[in-house]
Amino acid sequence: MTEKPTAIRRSFASDNYSGVHPELLAALARVNVGHQVAYGDDDTTAELRMLIKEHFGPLAEVFPVFNGTGANVVAMQAMSSPWSAVVCAESAHVHVDEGGAPEKVAGLKLWPVPTPDGKLTPELLDTQAWGYGDVHRAQPTVLAVTQSTELGTLYTIAELADLVERAKFHGMRVLLDGARIANAAVALGASFAEFTTDLGIDAVTFGGTKNGAMAAEAVVVLSPELASAVDYLRKSDMQLASKMRYPSAQLIALLTDDLWARNAGNANNMARRLYEGVAALDGVTVTREVQVNSVFAVLPPDVTASLQQRFGFYTWDQGTGEVRWMCSWDTTEADVDAFVAAIKTELAAR
Amino acid sequence: MTEKPTAIRRSFASDNYSGVHPELLAALARVNVGHQVAYGDDDTTAELRMLIKEHFGPLAEVFPVFNGTGANVVAMQAMSSPWSAVVCAESAHVHVDEGGAPEKVAGLKLWPVPTPDGKLTPELLDTQAWGYGDVHRAQPTVLAVTQSTELGTLYTIAELADLVERAKFHGMRVLLDGARIANAAVALGASFAEFTTDLGIDAVTFGGTKNGAMAAEAVVVLSPELASAVDYLRKSDMQLASKMRYPSAQLIALLTDDLWARNAGNANNMARRLYEGVAALDGVTVTREVQVNSVFAVLPPDVTASLQQRFGFYTWDQGTGEVRWMCSWDTTEADVDAFVAAIKTELAAR
Amino acid sequence: MTEKPTAIRRSFASDNYSGVHPELLAALARVNVGHQVAYGDDDTTAELRMLIKEHFGPLAEVFPVFNGTGANVVAMQAMSSPWSAVVCAESAHVHVDEGGAPEKVAGLKLWPVPTPDGKLTPELLDTQAWGYGDVHRAQPTVLAVTQSTELGTLYTIAELADLVERAKFHGMRVLLDGARIANAAVALGASFAEFTTDLGIDAVTFGGTKNGAMAAEAVVVLSPELASAVDYLRKSDMQLASKMRYPSAQLIALLTDDLWARNAGNANNMARRLYEGVAALDGVTVTREVQVNSVFAVLPPDVTASLQQRFGFYTWDQGTGEVRWMCSWDTTEADVDAFVAAIKTELAAR
Amino acid sequence: MTEKPTAIRRSFASDNYSGVHPELLAALARVNVGHQVAYGDDDTTAELRMLIKEHFGPLAEVFPVFNGTGANVVAMQAMSSPWSAVVCAESAHVHVDEGGAPEKVAGLKLWPVPTPDGKLTPELLDTQAWGYGDVHRAQPTVLAVTQSTELGTLYTIAELADLVERAKFHGMRVLLDGARIANAAVALGASFAEFTTDLGIDAVTFGGTKNGAMAAEAVVVLSPELASAVDYLRKSDMQLASKMRYPSAQLIALLTDDLWARNAGNANNMARRLYEGVAALDGVTVTREVQVNSVFAVLPPDVTASLQQRFGFYTWDQGTGEVRWMCSWDTTEADVDAFVAAIKTELAAR
Repeated sequence: MTEKPTAIRRSFASDNYSGVHPELLAALARVNVGHQVAYGDDDTTAELRMLIKEHFGPLAEVFPVFNGTGANVVAMQAMSSPWSAVVCAESAHVHVDEGGAPEKVAGLKLWPVPTPDGKLTPELLDTQAWGYGDVHRAQPTVLAVTQSTELGTLYTIAELADLVERAKFHGMRVLLDGARIANAAVALGASFAEFTTDLGIDAVTFGGTKNGAMAAEAVVVLSPELASAVDYLRKSDMQLASKMRYPSAQLIALLTDDLWARNAGNANNMARRLYEGVAALDGVTVTREVQVNSVFAVLPPDVTASLQQRFGFYTWDQGTGEVRWMCSWDTTEADVDAFVAAIKTELAAR
Repeated sequence: MTEKPTAIRRSFASDNYSGVHPELLAALARVNVGHQVAYGDDDTTAELRMLIKEHFGPLAEVFPVFNGTGANVVAMQAMSSPWSAVVCAESAHVHVDEGGAPEKVAGLKLWPVPTPDGKLTPELLDTQAWGYGDVHRAQPTVLAVTQSTELGTLYTIAELADLVERAKFHGMRVLLDGARIANAAVALGASFAEFTTDLGIDAVTFGGTKNGAMAAEAVVVLSPELASAVDYLRKSDMQLASKMRYPSAQLIALLTDDLWARNAGNANNMARRLYEGVAALDGVTVTREVQVNSVFAVLPPDVTASLQQRFGFYTWDQGTGEVRWMCSWDTTEADVDAFVAAIKTELAAR
Repeated sequence: MTEKPTAIRRSFASDNYSGVHPELLAALARVNVGHQVAYGDDDTTAELRMLIKEHFGPLAEVFPVFNGTGANVVAMQAMSSPWSAVVCAESAHVHVDEGGAPEKVAGLKLWPVPTPDGKLTPELLDTQAWGYGDVHRAQPTVLAVTQSTELGTLYTIAELADLVERAKFHGMRVLLDGARIANAAVALGASFAEFTTDLGIDAVTFGGTKNGAMAAEAVVVLSPELASAVDYLRKSDMQLASKMRYPSAQLIALLTDDLWARNAGNANNMARRLYEGVAALDGVTVTREVQVNSVFAVLPPDVTASLQQRFGFYTWDQGTGEVRWMCSWDTTEADVDAFVAAIKTELAAR
Repeated sequence: MTEKPTAIRRSFASDNYSGVHPELLAALARVNVGHQVAYGDDDTTAELRMLIKEHFGPLAEVFPVFNGTGANVVAMQAMSSPWSAVVCAESAHVHVDEGGAPEKVAGLKLWPVPTPDGKLTPELLDTQAWGYGDVHRAQPTVLAVTQSTELGTLYTIAELADLVERAKFHGMRVLLDGARIANAAVALGASFAEFTTDLGIDAVTFGGTKNGAMAAEAVVVLSPELASAVDYLRKSDMQLASKMRYPSAQLIALLTDDLWARNAGNANNMARRLYEGVAALDGVTVTREVQVNSVFAVLPPDVTASLQQRFGFYTWDQGTGEVRWMCSWDTTEADVDAFVAAIKTELAAR
């Protein structure tokens, strides 16, 4: 009874398991005064609009939505015709983890591309970016990339630039799925604009929830001609909050005093610490480069099973037994150290 | 500069313009401790499940979602086949105010029925509940009723019972759109179950946002065989929150110490007070029965225009000039009295 | 045994009950030589393209499809954004008789408008053409009119011109559902272009099946910027025939030697003859103006019942007992006279 | 001028380039008498229903539709819930060649599986048949297999039986895409039922068009509980012909005097003859087993280019230069021999 609450309280299962950063709760209370116009015509959302322009450039327009799936689908649909298809990595969240929402809500076909590390390249893109003008082939007019990726990897700015350039060569629009954009920016040591706006990316889904918010995601439109579509689609795709000041206030709080970077930085650092704690252990094989806030590893099955009874984390690949450990904005050094110690103990006990 | 903020701060435009009740903010802070499993497998949502059973009966299952449109579409789709259609009042939110989401997200056809007062009757239902077995006609297998209605009216329990019975005779499923279910329950002096579960209604969309929440709506499934469909559709319809404890905590707070009834009761009372303040005025024609928290009226156009510069409220019908005044959980007697006084002043100044 | 076949063999139930005109069967045999490129890149379809330009103007592009529902949905979707809605008469085929395909396949919302006679007017259009820019309202950006209408009525060219002008004022695209366009053209004594292209209509669904074809419908695009969308949507909406030469040959045959006009003219004339045969009868009330190939009437219920045992025709309105009698390209004077005689006999026998 | 018509007249590009078998044209003329009830309630379709039961068993129900894409989508949707996904080979027509119709019309997600030869196996199925009960994963509840496959390969009955058994173990429904079911049956020397009904397959899309019809495909429902869904979906998916007697007559003609087997047998034999003519040629590498009516091969690029100027055929894989040669019901020995001779000439001329 004592173990489980402890484990659950600060697990390595998902950055979604964490709570809300106190500065955001304070922000919610601060805007909780009187009446405000609903559906985004409030003062707080107006303030957010200006703030997003500071980060993404003067043409950027922000549309808060409810969750990451909603953000991705609204953005992809805004870039699409009814005959469009989206090229993405086979490991992309839009393909494997959204319950088929892109297909079911927006009628989008996906052309998934296998990748070694969750990252597309111009060459990989070319494997699906063809058949333009052939009505029998759902037209690959949208590229969706995730930064940082679902596999904990990171595109360099140069890699992204090459990929976007190749997509533009094909006449494609580009979405950057930024569910963990803060972790990416910190890891790159770059501003948001440097790896989005500046590269010609058309829209970004900006993730706040995994970065310490309660529920705050947004579509950030960088190509202004898409803004009207996003505006309408946010409503018809059921992503329009009535009391918009509250998600807006959360996003403002994240963008204030670099809270986004403090939160993401901590998560990244804790993953690094965890990696360093286990990398040299006999019996632990780290399977992917640790670039942001996750560590993927393979352990002896019985060790995994035993650890999972005390600490929350997921087996990523049932076949290989690979596990994923996520660090969050609130993961502490003590959390990591206790976990590493437990791993060592389990390994030693075999 | 002084007038507008005042007007906006406590407008009569929409119950969505209001803020969050302090007890809900406190509840959010209370659950903001440590990690919790995401997507609804948390302790708070477990508590909500039990609480909903207390209110709607032991078979009721609750699925928190993001907003009212999402709740309605998930619930209607769960009741439907791909060839189904939904019969609703022509004034229903699902028909006129959801950006076409039922059609666009769920492929549902609506068979709207004109009504005098936003309320369907068995006879009105029969005007569209026909053609069963004819593949050329989208099959009217779902009935959606709103309680209280978009026109501020209220079904008696007997009226609802008759309507549901008629729908069941046609083999239809019934959804009660309860965006303002709290206002209805207070006005009826009834428990939720008395006008939902007890009548054989299959699902309810339970509205918290207009009743003092930040963003807290839910599908309450009363016919258990629909629960699995709602569970899947909540995800694929992009209504599944990762950090579910927060909407759940809001709903719990509303259901604690009858906060829902206190909030709705205040809104209803303030509408009654407003009605009483204007009913006898020369130049004001109240156009619909005042049964819950709204007053519809026609005023001289210049009076309407002048008032709208100082107080927030909408013209409901551009043709007739009918306006809608909504009262909220936080509307005060002083708000109402000031508004009535302003109306009197404007009328006198003509 | 003798009665039923007779009744079925040439019924008044639907112009879809008729067979294929011999000139079309001959055309099918004529193109049945060797191999042809599939999916529309064949010689026959090339010939059809030129022929359609002769009838609808040099910018017209034709896209044969399978059926009328397919034609309407492809055309409406090509004119739409995902947030669009279609304004149509409440009696329109797209609303009442397509199994919800516009909603289910294309996600289109319909804004149906009650009409006295199946015909919209600028004023009736205005009842739904509003709310532009409001994301909560599915945007009424498409107008669908049927010529001749589902109620056997006919827009004059002036009426259509006024309606299209009003739609253009609202920024709408206009589709003319021409399932019975041939009957309309004959009744108007006008070329197809005079009541479509010349008025600024954007696309026409051109109906051949009811006019003597086996299965030959087409989307005729008059606003060239829609052609690419129709091309893609015809495929993804599952309306692209592989062996396209055969539907194309049917359409060519109809457009050769005015077969379309001969067929439609006969149908219209037979309806006129039927009308004249029953108009003066005591006990028969013709309920709608007879302008093309149908007669709507009310008879004593027992007379209707008795006639329906011998002749095929549908009760149009179960409430009033109104019946619809359709004449077809192959209806003969003898068919009509026998039917009128039977009606007289039944009425006399009461 | 002489070359191109020759090439086009009997190409090796597609079995869709061929015309209509004379026995089918005769059948069309035969049913072209008088009026028949529309939409499938005609005498010819009734006859087809009985004939299909003879071939697929007494529970089989047939629903003629317009084309193969329509057949597949109607059948898959009938087997699905809105949260379902379809597992198919990566080379499946439903994935690569239907313009995204499964996603766009039916909202289906596809889980494509790479295969060496277009054929799934139980092990390959298992790579995607998992995650049941996890709302984040579109549920893999339908298996679609193509027999014979898009790559000209053939499942043995035992292979299909194993695959279907595995699908049933997962609780999946199974569709057999039979666009070339006749070629498969002839190659297997089996009745249709032996590799469909008898194995527990739930529905078949029965292809007539490539087998000598004008436009005649059908959904054959083998699990009777799906029949009602197919009936409704055929309409709302825009696949319901009004003058149904004509497609039905075509299917009857194919099933009469084994015309289906004669046609498919000829196509298969001509592919075999073509294979034998080129297999030993220096410079021609046949890339896939020749089991039905296609030959895949790689030639020197200049030879391919030169041949394509005179004979119609497609390059299947732009990367490798692999070409596909299809034989049809009307391909003659002389066609094949002339083509083989031309290949030899081109190769010799290098």
